[in-house]
Amino acid sequence: MQVSQSVLVFLCRRMALHLRKCFLHPVRSRLVLPPQRIKSLYTTFDGFDEDEIREKLQRFPGGSVDLSKQTSGIAVLTVNNPGRMNAFTGTMMGELKDRVDELEQWTDGKGLIVQGAASTFCSGSDLNAVRAISNPQDGMKMCMLMQNTLTRLLRLPLVSVALVEGKALGGGAELTTACDFRLMAPGSEIRFVHKHMGLVPGWGGAARLVRIVGSKNALQLLSTARRVDPDYAASIGLTEEILASSDVSRSLDQAQKWLSDHTKGPSAVIRALKKVVVSGRELPLDEALRTEKEVFGTVWGGPANLEALAQGPKRK
Amino acid sequence: MQVSQSVLVFLCRRMALHLRKCFLHPVRSRLVLPPQRIKSLYTTFDGFDEDEIREKLQRFPGGSVDLSKQTSGIAVLTVNNPGRMNAFTGTMMGELKDRVDELEQWTDGKGLIVQGAASTFCSGSDLNAVRAISNPQDGMKMCMLMQNTLTRLLRLPLVSVALVEGKALGGGAELTTACDFRLMAPGSEIRFVHKHMGLVPGWGGAARLVRIVGSKNALQLLSTARRVDPDYAASIGLTEEILASSDVSRSLDQAQKWLSDHTKGPSAVIRALKKVVVSGRELPLDEALRTEKEVFGTVWGGPANLEALAQGPKRK
Amino acid sequence: MQVSQSVLVFLCRRMALHLRKCFLHPVRSRLVLPPQRIKSLYTTFDGFDEDEIREKLQRFPGGSVDLSKQTSGIAVLTVNNPGRMNAFTGTMMGELKDRVDELEQWTDGKGLIVQGAASTFCSGSDLNAVRAISNPQDGMKMCMLMQNTLTRLLRLPLVSVALVEGKALGGGAELTTACDFRLMAPGSEIRFVHKHMGLVPGWGGAARLVRIVGSKNALQLLSTARRVDPDYAASIGLTEEILASSDVSRSLDQAQKWLSDHTKGPSAVIRALKKVVVSGRELPLDEALRTEKEVFGTVWGGPANLEALAQGPKRK
Repeated sequence: MQVSQSVLVFLCRRMALHLRKCFLHPVRSRLVLPPQRIKSLYTTFDGFDEDEIREKLQRFPGGSVDLSKQTSGIAVLTVNNPGRMNAFTGTMMGELKDRVDELEQWTDGKGLIVQGAASTFCSGSDLNAVRAISNPQDGMKMCMLMQNTLTRLLRLPLVSVALVEGKALGGGAELTTACDFRLMAPGSEIRFVHKHMGLVPGWGGAARLVRIVGSKNALQLLSTARRVDPDYAASIGLTEEILASSDVSRSLDQAQKWLSDHTKGPSAVIRALKKVVVSGRELPLDEALRTEKEVFGTVWGGPANLEALAQGPKRK
Repeated sequence: MQVSQSVLVFLCRRMALHLRKCFLHPVRSRLVLPPQRIKSLYTTFDGFDEDEIREKLQRFPGGSVDLSKQTSGIAVLTVNNPGRMNAFTGTMMGELKDRVDELEQWTDGKGLIVQGAASTFCSGSDLNAVRAISNPQDGMKMCMLMQNTLTRLLRLPLVSVALVEGKALGGGAELTTACDFRLMAPGSEIRFVHKHMGLVPGWGGAARLVRIVGSKNALQLLSTARRVDPDYAASIGLTEEILASSDVSRSLDQAQKWLSDHTKGPSAVIRALKKVVVSGRELPLDEALRTEKEVFGTVWGGPANLEALAQGPKRK
Repeated sequence: MQVSQSVLVFLCRRMALHLRKCFLHPVRSRLVLPPQRIKSLYTTFDGFDEDEIREKLQRFPGGSVDLSKQTSGIAVLTVNNPGRMNAFTGTMMGELKDRVDELEQWTDGKGLIVQGAASTFCSGSDLNAVRAISNPQDGMKMCMLMQNTLTRLLRLPLVSVALVEGKALGGGAELTTACDFRLMAPGSEIRFVHKHMGLVPGWGGAARLVRIVGSKNALQLLSTARRVDPDYAASIGLTEEILASSDVSRSLDQAQKWLSDHTKGPSAVIRALKKVVVSGRELPLDEALRTEKEVFGTVWGGPANLEALAQGPKRK
């Protein structure tokens, strides 16, 4: 076959378009495409085989990750392994992924509370599981699974809040950063103890912490491994609200009340608000503006908008 | 025609260079190239036809957007539709674009004050216009026009400040985020009421708000639609200064005085300072550094620099 | 030679992969690859010839940049030209680069203090050198050299702190932004005086300042050229700590003590912590997460980690 110059030019143009898509799409698509398409930060391209790592993790069972969806549009996700301060066993890592799958399908949802069982938050990963997979390859695969899951958790179109009672240590501290907000009970603490374990965050906690408190505070918290109590957390912006009472039976109620102020209204609107904030914080300005316009298109002229227009002037 | 391998390699290299330009240029060019080349965030590539959308908007007339350029190098842009709390009619959206065109050509300018007429800021878009174009396609086109205009407004090489008196509601709240700074008069408020209209921001207000107050505060303001008074605005960094007096006749004077502290000096230098800050806030670090170096080259050895060098040691 | 379609497709695929690498690698590689490969923000591709600019700068001698590496893992870098308030001569710019080369090779290092000699910080570039190269081309080349060096300084896997005594003016103010933290002695000041010299920052100070204090504070500091004392610096996040005493003989001791709280522990872990923070602040979220996972892989199952696991439960 002979190739004419025009064929070459044609091929080049197609390839240019294809490349353009390759470079521009990965970021935007995670935000705009339906959830089924956006599950993975990592794919087989990265040597990530979810089935393989889950199978390995099944060997370290115990505890559970429980999900309760309320008709109010608020769900409660509970990390449940109280005998080990809610540390993540291997099976719990898989269950967390399954619960996030479920939340991505929950189109009526507006808010999410992440908490630990028995009035303490979470102490990271279970040392038994950890010891058994202490080679770098397995460690990085575990990170891929948890990063995938926590990235999807943070991008859910739900206003999410970590309810921190007791201690959030290591991976538990990282888990708090996968929510939009953090509420801390009196006496609770968040502590990035990784340094004392000879480690750095690997569940995405460092990248997210930098975005929440700035790189200087993040470097301080990580390099000193200092205990962060509610007052200090408030001063650096790590918590939004310190709960009024340490009566543990009332913490969840308080969190529900706090969150419901943010989720009042039609789910389509609340979910769209979260989406424009996600694109605003993750994307370069130009891409964030485009996404904002597209999300705007999903509510403009929609039921809630038409009803408000019919009622006339803006409620001031 | 037969194609030798060396021709192919040559073509591939050219294309690689071309692609490199395509990917790297769009962002940088908006900051460095002359204003004529950088007008559009959206182009026909996005299905954006400015003439078409302006023609449609002409059917919703009323009010005006006025511009007054002072010899001091400070201009005052006034959103003027007091009968409707300075809501944007269709023609006003077109006029705002024309005023930004004019400001891009104003090479002597150093500062800009954006205000509303009759001692209130702006209440967003006029509901009459809004009702008539309540299909998603037209809504997104209106967003494209306003996003284009407001992005260019924020990137002007002028130190810009929104003077907020009375109320800044919905799109009016979004407009305040298209300035570098916000000054609030006593008793004034900024309120992202979009949720109550069944909407999300669409003029770029969400993407910009995240950059001004952080994603947590942005999500709170949007999801609660809460009223932001000057004190609360100051606490989250939404305003830089609360004006001393609610005597409305003096607000503009106060804003001029505040701004003039930032614009004292040669226009070439003030404009260059704004440019390095724009690139610093919009671009990844590497690109921002390159732009900073290029902007540096426009003033290094220039008249103001040579005069300062001739005078000797730095003024401390 | 005739070219079959399959050959073309093959070539196109290879090129696509190559381009993908070109676009994705530059940013990540600086963070992950060994220091020899990551030296330059600018290369000959940018018209940057390091030997040429250094030769030109050799004509403006004087002062020195001194480095003292301690067995504690903390190094002290001293800008030394007290007769000119530690202004950078041409040879000092070259020496700074050499010291950063040395620090990149120092695999035992954990922390770095940058200070000026004789109890003042640095007053930017020496006016004698500056006057002699006051054409834009040479100015931009000087910027490239200093930007390269300071970017590498900030990315060192060391927790770095600028110890500000006396005055940090112009380029000296920019130098403070190339450290993770700033400690200020009582009575000291940081001042971006560029406006008064008819200039903008060119050593990367604007891009970095925006990242430290936000774009609004950055624009204010640059456009007013205001003096920033320790209290104001603390209020906008430009300093982390105001030293207790103005007894200059004790400032360095205080800085060492402050820093040692952040560098306690094995160097491999401290360096890894700095790396995940650098990727967190420089890269888009997705890329930062990938880098975090890779850095995690360098310590997971490493000596410090295995020792901690052997000791059992996390130290709370």
